[in-house]
Amino acid sequence: MNLAEQYIQIRKYSEKICAPLATEDYVVQPIVDVSPPKWHLGHTTWFFETFLLKPHAIGYQEYDENYNYVFNSYYETVGNRVIRTDRGNLSRPSVADIYKYRTYVDEAMVRFLNKPINGELKELIDLGFNHEQQHQELLITDIKYILGNNPLFPAYDKDWETDSSKISETELITIEEGVYEIGYQGDAFHFDNELNRHKVYLNTFSISSNLINNAEYLEFIEAGGYQNFNYWHAEGWDWVKTNQISAPMYWHLIDGEWFNYTFSGLQKLDKSQILTHVSYYEAYAFASWKGMRLPTEFEWEIAAKHFDWGQRWEWTESAYLPYPGFSKAPGAIGEYNGKFMVNQKVLRGASAATPENHSRITYRNFFHPNLRWQFTGIRLVK
Amino acid sequence: MNLAEQYIQIRKYSEKICAPLATEDYVVQPIVDVSPPKWHLGHTTWFFETFLLKPHAIGYQEYDENYNYVFNSYYETVGNRVIRTDRGNLSRPSVADIYKYRTYVDEAMVRFLNKPINGELKELIDLGFNHEQQHQELLITDIKYILGNNPLFPAYDKDWETDSSKISETELITIEEGVYEIGYQGDAFHFDNELNRHKVYLNTFSISSNLINNAEYLEFIEAGGYQNFNYWHAEGWDWVKTNQISAPMYWHLIDGEWFNYTFSGLQKLDKSQILTHVSYYEAYAFASWKGMRLPTEFEWEIAAKHFDWGQRWEWTESAYLPYPGFSKAPGAIGEYNGKFMVNQKVLRGASAATPENHSRITYRNFFHPNLRWQFTGIRLVK
Amino acid sequence: MNLAEQYIQIRKYSEKICAPLATEDYVVQPIVDVSPPKWHLGHTTWFFETFLLKPHAIGYQEYDENYNYVFNSYYETVGNRVIRTDRGNLSRPSVADIYKYRTYVDEAMVRFLNKPINGELKELIDLGFNHEQQHQELLITDIKYILGNNPLFPAYDKDWETDSSKISETELITIEEGVYEIGYQGDAFHFDNELNRHKVYLNTFSISSNLINNAEYLEFIEAGGYQNFNYWHAEGWDWVKTNQISAPMYWHLIDGEWFNYTFSGLQKLDKSQILTHVSYYEAYAFASWKGMRLPTEFEWEIAAKHFDWGQRWEWTESAYLPYPGFSKAPGAIGEYNGKFMVNQKVLRGASAATPENHSRITYRNFFHPNLRWQFTGIRLVK
Amino acid sequence: MNLAEQYIQIRKYSEKICAPLATEDYVVQPIVDVSPPKWHLGHTTWFFETFLLKPHAIGYQEYDENYNYVFNSYYETVGNRVIRTDRGNLSRPSVADIYKYRTYVDEAMVRFLNKPINGELKELIDLGFNHEQQHQELLITDIKYILGNNPLFPAYDKDWETDSSKISETELITIEEGVYEIGYQGDAFHFDNELNRHKVYLNTFSISSNLINNAEYLEFIEAGGYQNFNYWHAEGWDWVKTNQISAPMYWHLIDGEWFNYTFSGLQKLDKSQILTHVSYYEAYAFASWKGMRLPTEFEWEIAAKHFDWGQRWEWTESAYLPYPGFSKAPGAIGEYNGKFMVNQKVLRGASAATPENHSRITYRNFFHPNLRWQFTGIRLVK
Repeated sequence: MNLAEQYIQIRKYSEKICAPLATEDYVVQPIVDVSPPKWHLGHTTWFFETFLLKPHAIGYQEYDENYNYVFNSYYETVGNRVIRTDRGNLSRPSVADIYKYRTYVDEAMVRFLNKPINGELKELIDLGFNHEQQHQELLITDIKYILGNNPLFPAYDKDWETDSSKISETELITIEEGVYEIGYQGDAFHFDNELNRHKVYLNTFSISSNLINNAEYLEFIEAGGYQNFNYWHAEGWDWVKTNQISAPMYWHLIDGEWFNYTFSGLQKLDKSQILTHVSYYEAYAFASWKGMRLPTEFEWEIAAKHFDWGQRWEWTESAYLPYPGFSKAPGAIGEYNGKFMVNQKVLRGASAATPENHSRITYRNFFHPNLRWQFTGIRLVK
Repeated sequence: MNLAEQYIQIRKYSEKICAPLATEDYVVQPIVDVSPPKWHLGHTTWFFETFLLKPHAIGYQEYDENYNYVFNSYYETVGNRVIRTDRGNLSRPSVADIYKYRTYVDEAMVRFLNKPINGELKELIDLGFNHEQQHQELLITDIKYILGNNPLFPAYDKDWETDSSKISETELITIEEGVYEIGYQGDAFHFDNELNRHKVYLNTFSISSNLINNAEYLEFIEAGGYQNFNYWHAEGWDWVKTNQISAPMYWHLIDGEWFNYTFSGLQKLDKSQILTHVSYYEAYAFASWKGMRLPTEFEWEIAAKHFDWGQRWEWTESAYLPYPGFSKAPGAIGEYNGKFMVNQKVLRGASAATPENHSRITYRNFFHPNLRWQFTGIRLVK
Repeated sequence: MNLAEQYIQIRKYSEKICAPLATEDYVVQPIVDVSPPKWHLGHTTWFFETFLLKPHAIGYQEYDENYNYVFNSYYETVGNRVIRTDRGNLSRPSVADIYKYRTYVDEAMVRFLNKPINGELKELIDLGFNHEQQHQELLITDIKYILGNNPLFPAYDKDWETDSSKISETELITIEEGVYEIGYQGDAFHFDNELNRHKVYLNTFSISSNLINNAEYLEFIEAGGYQNFNYWHAEGWDWVKTNQISAPMYWHLIDGEWFNYTFSGLQKLDKSQILTHVSYYEAYAFASWKGMRLPTEFEWEIAAKHFDWGQRWEWTESAYLPYPGFSKAPGAIGEYNGKFMVNQKVLRGASAATPENHSRITYRNFFHPNLRWQFTGIRLVK
Repeated sequence: MNLAEQYIQIRKYSEKICAPLATEDYVVQPIVDVSPPKWHLGHTTWFFETFLLKPHAIGYQEYDENYNYVFNSYYETVGNRVIRTDRGNLSRPSVADIYKYRTYVDEAMVRFLNKPINGELKELIDLGFNHEQQHQELLITDIKYILGNNPLFPAYDKDWETDSSKISETELITIEEGVYEIGYQGDAFHFDNELNRHKVYLNTFSISSNLINNAEYLEFIEAGGYQNFNYWHAEGWDWVKTNQISAPMYWHLIDGEWFNYTFSGLQKLDKSQILTHVSYYEAYAFASWKGMRLPTEFEWEIAAKHFDWGQRWEWTESAYLPYPGFSKAPGAIGEYNGKFMVNQKVLRGASAATPENHSRITYRNFFHPNLRWQFTGIRLVK
C-alpha cells in the first residue's frame, strides 16, 4: 500500500466509526474530557491541513481560516484555540460542512502524497496517521460516553465487539531481577515519549497472565470496597465521596441486579467479561484489597511478551515521566507529548477500540487517575 | 377559528421558527439560561400530553414514558426533572424523533379538541397555548444566542425583523399623582400573576415616549459608564468586573468600529436602532448616568396607553412580587408563576419576538437582573 | 449630653460588647457575611478618621496609612478595599493595636467635638454614631455566629438577654384600606432610604399582634415543611436542598431532642421563646404552610403602632427599593444605602441586639433572602 | 539524653518557634495548605495522647474528648476529623487552652517515658518525635505565609536565619552509569516510605554542585520565562495564567525594584541568596529554559554525597511512588505516608526550617507541584 492508499484507508476508518451516529450525536460534549465526534473529524483534518498542506503543498488554498480557530486543540503555537469546554456549544460548522472539509483536504492530501516525499515529511505524515488513529480510539470512547449517559441508552452497533471474555486459566508469571532494556528500538513509527531506550533495574516480581474480570471486581464491591478508606489513596477516597462512586462507569444496579451499558445498549452484567471503565484510584484500591499491587510500566513492558495483551488499557503504578534523554521536537509538533508529563498515570497495552497497527509493546498511553471513560482494566502483580 | 384550528396555528408557528435551523442548532445549550431548540419543541408537547391528554383524553396512550423525564422543566410535582444544565448533553431523542412526538400528540390533541370541552379544561388549554407562545419567544432568543455566540456568526433569516428604529420625536408624558387601578380586568386569557386588580397610589412622574436607541447608549459607553462604579449597584458593579462587561450583548468592537450580531449575521451597528440586550444592571446604570430612573411597573402600566410599546421588553425598577390577593392554583399548574417571586425584576411591554396576541398592557414578564439574552430595552422616567 | 459625651458613650458600648471575648474570638471570619470583631472595631474608627478627622480636624495626623486599606469596607471612592473574604486571614493589626487606634482617634474626636460644629458636620457626626450602632448589632450577631459554630459551643455572657417570650394572646389587628403616608418625617436622625415620605394605597389586611414562637415553628418542621417544595420559592427550595437545611440556624437535634445555641451556650429549646434565625425563604414557606403571608413593609409601618415590636427583625414581603424621590448624597457617603437596592428583602422592627435609640418605625433594614445569622423572625398577615 | 529528656527538648522547640507570635497569629488559616499555629500545637499533642497515652499509659485520663474532634488531621481511622478548611474558623480552644493541654499531656508523657518502654512502643515514640519535627517545619513555613501575606508585612524574628548565600563556584559533578542502591539502611529512625532499599539503574548524568540563586532566576523572569508557554507543562501554564503568576512567592515588584518578604519583613531582593518559594512547575520551566532538567530522586540520592545540601528542599522530577516492597503498617499509623502516593512530587534535601537531626540523605519529602510556601529550590542536571 502506498502512502496515499494508506491515508485513504485511515481516513475512511474514522468515518466508518461515525456511520451509526445520528447527526445530533456528533454535536454534544457531556463532560470536558469527551469531545463532540464532529470536532474529532474536523480536528484530524485540520492537523493534515496545518502541518502538511499549508507549509508543504505548493499552491494549496486554505479551506476556511475560521476553522483554524475552531479545530485547534492544544497547540499553543498555532493561534488561539477554542476553550475545550466550549466545543459542545458549537452547532456550526455543521456535520455536513465538516465532511465537505474532509473531502477537500483528502483530495489535496492525495495529490500531495502522490508526489515525491522526503524523509522528514514522511515522519510528519506518519505522525498525522497515528494522530488520526489516536482520535479514532477517542471517537469510540467518546461515542460510548455520549450514548451511555443518555437516559434512553441508545445502542451504537450491536456488531461492534469491545468486550472479551477471560478464557484461559490465570497463572503468575515470574520475572527475575536484573537490568532490562526499556523503550522503543527500531525504524518504524513510534512516539517521542518511547525514547530513549534505556536500562532499568527490576526486582523479581510475579505478574498475572490475565486481566481482572467482572466477577472478581464484584467481590470487591460486595466486600464493601467502596466503603473502606483503607484501600484508597487519600485523594482517591475524596473522589469516591465527592462523586458518590460505588461501581465502575456504566454499571447500574436496578432492582438488585447489575446491568451495564455496552454498545448493544443496557445489558445484564456478564460476569465472565474482562472488567473495564475503572479509574486508577479504583485499580489501586482493588489491588490493595487483594493484597497485591499494579505493575510499573517497566515491569509490564518486560513481562508482556509472556502473556496476551491488547484487550484493555492497563493502569500501571508509574507516573508519566520522560525517559532519560527525552527531548521534544521544536515547534508545535513538540507539544505532542512532553507537556503532559506531570500528574498523569501511564497505561500500557491497547483496547478493542485501538485501531489495528496502532499498538506496540513500548507504547505509553497516559490519563489522569480519575478518568474512566477509556477502556481501562486491571492486571495484578505480587 | 375553533380551538383545534387555533391549536394547529400555534403549534405550526413553533416549527416555522425552527425552519431555518440546521439539525445541529437544535441540540446545543451554550449557557444554562438557553435551552436547546429541540428541548423547547419537546417540552411544549409534553405539556399538552401531561396536563391535557393523559388526565382528560379517554384512551390516550402515552407516547414514551421516558419523555416525561426528558421534557419536564421545573414542575416538581411531575416526577424527576432533567437537571437544567444537562439538556445540552442529550443527543437523543433526535430532532426527527421529537417531530414524530409532536405529530403524535398533535393528532391526539385535535381529536380531543374536536370533542366538547368544559370551562375548566378550556382554561387549561388556553394556558397550554400561552405556554407554547412563551416558548416561541424563548426559541427565538435562544436561537439568537446559539448562533450569535458561534465564531462563524451564521445568519438565521435575513427577513426576520427584530429591530426597529426610533422614528418619532421623544416627548415626556406626565402622569398626575393619584390612586390608579393596576392588574388584569376582563374575561380573556391572563396569567395568575396579573391578579388581583388593585389600587396603587402614584406620585406625579414624567415618562419618555421613546425607548433609548444605540446612539444614546454609545454616549454612555464613551463617557466611561462601564468604568465608573458610581452609576452602578454594588452587585451590578461586581457583575461588570467579574464578567468584564463593556457593552451590550452581541456588540463587538472590531478595529475601532462597533458591530453587532443580528439575525442577518454580524453587521455594522445601526445607531438609529432601539437599544436591546442590556441587563437590568446596565439599564439602572444608564439611567443613573442620565440623572433619571427606570419606571416602576405600576407607572409603566398607567402610562403605557399614551405611547407605543411592544418593540422591546422594558426593565422596570419593580421587583417581581405578588399582587394583593394573589393565590396560586393547586397542583403542578400552580407552579407556573408564584414560585419565582423572589430576586427577579419585572419587565413590561413585549418584543418583536413575542408572538402576536401574546402581549397586553397588564402582562408581567420577569428575569434575573443580570440576564440580557432577551430583547430587553430601556425607557426613562424623571 | 453634649456631642463629645454622646460619642464616648457610643464608642464605649462597642467595647463593652467585646468585653467577654477571648483575643482569638476577635480574629476569625467563619463565613463571608460575618466580619471579625476586631475588624468592626477598626472599621468604625476608620469611619470617624476618614470622614471627619482627616477632612475637617485641622492639624490631624493620620494614625497609620495602611489602616485605610485594611479597614475600608465597601466605599469604592476611598482607595482600594480589602476583599471581604480576606478579613479573616489578617492576624495584624492585633487586637491591642486596634484598641490603641481607637484611643488615638477617640482623643482626637473629643477634641474635635468640643469645638464648634456646623450643621452639615453635625449630620455627618450623627451618621458616624448610627454607623457605629449598626456595627454594634453586627458585632453581637457575628460573635454569636463565631461562638455558635465552634464545636465547643462556648457561652458568651449568661446575662445577655437576646431572647424573649411571647406573653400576650395573639390577636389579629385589621387595617382598613385607603391611602397612607409612609417614610420618615421629622428632624431627628434618619437614613436617606427612609425618604421621601410618600403616599401608598393599602388594601384591607389583618396582621398578627405577635411574632411566631418556637412551638409554632416546630409544628411546621414536624409537618414536613422542609420536605415539601410546594411551600417554597423555587430558589428557596434549591437553597434547602443544596445546604441540607432542616431547621433554623443554631438548632440541633440531639438524640431526638431539640437544642439551640444561645449566648448561654447550648440549651434545650425553649418552645415559648420567639422564633429567630430563619431566612426569608423559611419565613415565606412557613407563611405558605399556614395559608397566610408576610406583610409588606408599608403594611408593617402602618400597623406597627398597634402592636409591640422590637424583639426581632421581621422579614417583609417587600424588596428593598428606593422610595419615590430618593436621591443619594454625593461622594462616599452616598454609597451608604442606594447601591444595595437590588435583590435584597426589607426587614422591619429591631432586635434585642439593636442598640437603644437606634430603632424607629420607619427604619428599613435589608438582607439577602438566604441569610439568617441576624435575629430574624416572622409575623403573619391574612 | 534519655527518652523523657528528648521528648521535652523536642516539645519545647515547637513552643520556641511560636514565641515571637502575637496571639492573633496563632489563629488564622489564609489558605487551605497552611494550618493555624495553634492547631499545629494541639495536633502534635493529640498525636501523643491518642497513639501513646490513651492506649498504653495505664490510668491516663483523656484531657477533653472534644479535642479528638478538633485536632485530628487526616487519620480516617480515629473518629471524625475537622474539615481542613474549617481550621481557621475556630477561635476556641484558645491559645492558652492549648498550652494547658500541652502541659497536661507533657506531664503524663514524662511519667510514661520514665517507665520501661518496649521496642514496639519505642518505635511509636520515635514516630511521635519525628511527627512533631515535621510540624515544626510546617509551623515555620505557615507562620511565614501568615505574616508574609499580611498587608503590614510584620517581621517574625530578625535573628532567624532561613536564607543562605551561594558561596562556592558552581561545578558539574558527573555520576557514571550503573546499578546503585537506593533507600534507607540502618537502625535509626526512618519513615516507611524510605524502604525497601533496592537497586536502580542510573544513566550517566552531571549535576550542579549549587542551587540556583535569585540572580539566575531573575534572568529567567527578564527573558520572558513567565510569558512563553514553551517552557511549561500544559497544567503549569494553566496555573500561571489562572493565578497570574509572574515571580516566586513573596517577591514584589515595587516601582521597578524587586523586594521579597523574609522573616525580617519586606526587604530589597538579595540577588546572591539561594532562590526559594518556587513551585515544581516553575522549577521545570526554569530548567527547560536553561536547556537542562531536574534530577530524579535516585540521581539526587546518589549524587548528594558529593555536594552540600540542606539549604532548600529540592524539587525532583520523580513522582512520589512506593519503593519495591513498600508496605504500610496496620491501623492509623499506616495512614502516615502510603495514601499520599499519587499526584505529588518528591523533594529531597532539607531546609533551614528543618529541625536538626530531622534530615538524612534518604528522606523523601513530597508536595503537590503547584505549592510554594515551603522553602523550595532548584538544582539542575544535564
